[in-house]
Amino acid sequence: MADTATVRPLWWEGDALYIVDQRRLPEHYQVLRLTDAEGVREAIATLAVRGAPAIGIAGAFGVYLGMGTLRGDDWDRRLEKVAEFLSSARPTAVNLSWAVNRVVEVGRRARNTQALLDAALAIWEEDRRLCHQIGELGAPLLEVCTAVLTHCNAGALGTSEWGTALAPIYALQAQGKILHVFADETRPLWQGARLTAWELSRAGIPVTVIPDSAAAVVLRDKRVQAVVVGADRIASNGDTANKIGTYGLAVLARHHGIPFYVAAPFSTFDLHLSSGTEIPIEERSAEELIFTGERRIVPEGAAVWNPAFDVTPAEYITAFITDRGVIRPPYPEQLAKRIRPED
Amino acid sequence: MADTATVRPLWWEGDALYIVDQRRLPEHYQVLRLTDAEGVREAIATLAVRGAPAIGIAGAFGVYLGMGTLRGDDWDRRLEKVAEFLSSARPTAVNLSWAVNRVVEVGRRARNTQALLDAALAIWEEDRRLCHQIGELGAPLLEVCTAVLTHCNAGALGTSEWGTALAPIYALQAQGKILHVFADETRPLWQGARLTAWELSRAGIPVTVIPDSAAAVVLRDKRVQAVVVGADRIASNGDTANKIGTYGLAVLARHHGIPFYVAAPFSTFDLHLSSGTEIPIEERSAEELIFTGERRIVPEGAAVWNPAFDVTPAEYITAFITDRGVIRPPYPEQLAKRIRPED
Repeated sequence: MADTATVRPLWWEGDALYIVDQRRLPEHYQVLRLTDAEGVREAIATLAVRGAPAIGIAGAFGVYLGMGTLRGDDWDRRLEKVAEFLSSARPTAVNLSWAVNRVVEVGRRARNTQALLDAALAIWEEDRRLCHQIGELGAPLLEVCTAVLTHCNAGALGTSEWGTALAPIYALQAQGKILHVFADETRPLWQGARLTAWELSRAGIPVTVIPDSAAAVVLRDKRVQAVVVGADRIASNGDTANKIGTYGLAVLARHHGIPFYVAAPFSTFDLHLSSGTEIPIEERSAEELIFTGERRIVPEGAAVWNPAFDVTPAEYITAFITDRGVIRPPYPEQLAKRIRPED
Repeated sequence: MADTATVRPLWWEGDALYIVDQRRLPEHYQVLRLTDAEGVREAIATLAVRGAPAIGIAGAFGVYLGMGTLRGDDWDRRLEKVAEFLSSARPTAVNLSWAVNRVVEVGRRARNTQALLDAALAIWEEDRRLCHQIGELGAPLLEVCTAVLTHCNAGALGTSEWGTALAPIYALQAQGKILHVFADETRPLWQGARLTAWELSRAGIPVTVIPDSAAAVVLRDKRVQAVVVGADRIASNGDTANKIGTYGLAVLARHHGIPFYVAAPFSTFDLHLSSGTEIPIEERSAEELIFTGERRIVPEGAAVWNPAFDVTPAEYITAFITDRGVIRPPYPEQLAKRIRPED
């Protein structure tokens, strides 16, 4: 069996954060060595590292690196500056500010950099545990399937390892059951084609890439028995922000009677938000749509609209697969049962 | 007001067919001069010319050009060979074999090449008339809108001029009413981004290109009040084959209570087919998804599925906009009223 644990998008070693440059996959496997907060922010903002949990981990190490290099101001003020600098790299993903704030809280009390590093290492280790829990708790939902559809990349490359949406698929593989995965290519940055297909192929899991617009016929023809996606932020009523296209997939899944699962660590729930209307939606650069490589595909004179995310209302989501178990409707009530004092 | 008549994808002049190479738009406006059937077939197969009516016109001239250069065999046998050679370039579009066969029928009776050229010229002229009729008959349906969504390119570039889906928009412009058009970029070949946005911008009509996967939120947010698309083949019950993604759009339009119109010349109805299940669906090369320019975006080891079309069941279609009027459900009955003896 292929060793899936070898797919890791980032790791800490010595005194640096190493990040697989996902902008260059699948053609080139290149690792960046980052030693300051500027480098970490740049890697997050330009999607060298992406996926809500992975950018949270990167941001956590970024606080430590930033406090080692930033001069001037008092400790608390510097912490605040570094946190603000890092958190603003991607406004939609709650994991980034969650992880950054957690390290900052530790730093406020401990007032030394080793405590910051320990806190970041703990977040990294914890994410590995969460991903494996999501995989094992989600596996029973998917073991009745022969094939599933996913969107974007919510796999090993978006977390510490195993991923969220793909974790149950890796967990089933570990149990000897291989599913076939249909991967939306996921315009404009092709995370499905470049990343999901890359990590699944590498793990020995059969994967078929389709244009995003072909998902409707894959669902209609029952080529898959479930859709499983990740999440960037989930409101307390279950409304879920995820890669643009997720909402359409959820409507199409419901129309064709196919279950639609959202897999995410519990920390993706933003309990301060009562509904999805409060989630800020990042609009990304028009250039992502205008150019493909060097080639201009949108003529001058035409406008473009390039939202990075959309919000899927809770009513379209069959269940959430989290490290605290599978959560089914009604969401506010079922979610409340999983909330712990430390949340 | 901009002169929209200047957008023409192909024309006959002297003894050659001139085709705007749509593979190179919007960056380069290059015209191909074709003088044999091989060149015409190649232009059709590689999408230098595309759009059901336009490839029909090209195919019609291709019969004339082919009969001028093919040697050996008797007249009827040569006609048959040329027709088969041209029609097989794109199997889904009924207009291609319809136009080719119409020229062949004339040729069988007349047995001279001038008659073939006259027949092709008549098809070209007739398409211009049909497109203007579609535009004028469809305009009242869209004049209540401030914006519409379209998919792929069913505009001037896919016909002789004006197009099918875009014809009502050009007709409204001629009446002084400017709509805003949202154009799905339309993977994998970007006909929406490259072609629809190019011809509309050139005509002075505001256009916004979106990723295909953003259409669901455009519909949900009521940024458009109608969807209008073209068709490659329509069965006698109204089931419609069109660019991959059309089916999903139709489901999403219905879900959000937005009218979904299919605009096409009446010849797009294939009255021999009782339903969409009989329409052959062309699968195009995997390379279209694997590479973007020189860059490989799907890793080796991953499969791809690249259907060129899907079939939208008639029940999702609010109305057909044709040169014989707007056709509303129930389709088999309402369609039957428009059938003429010559069909």
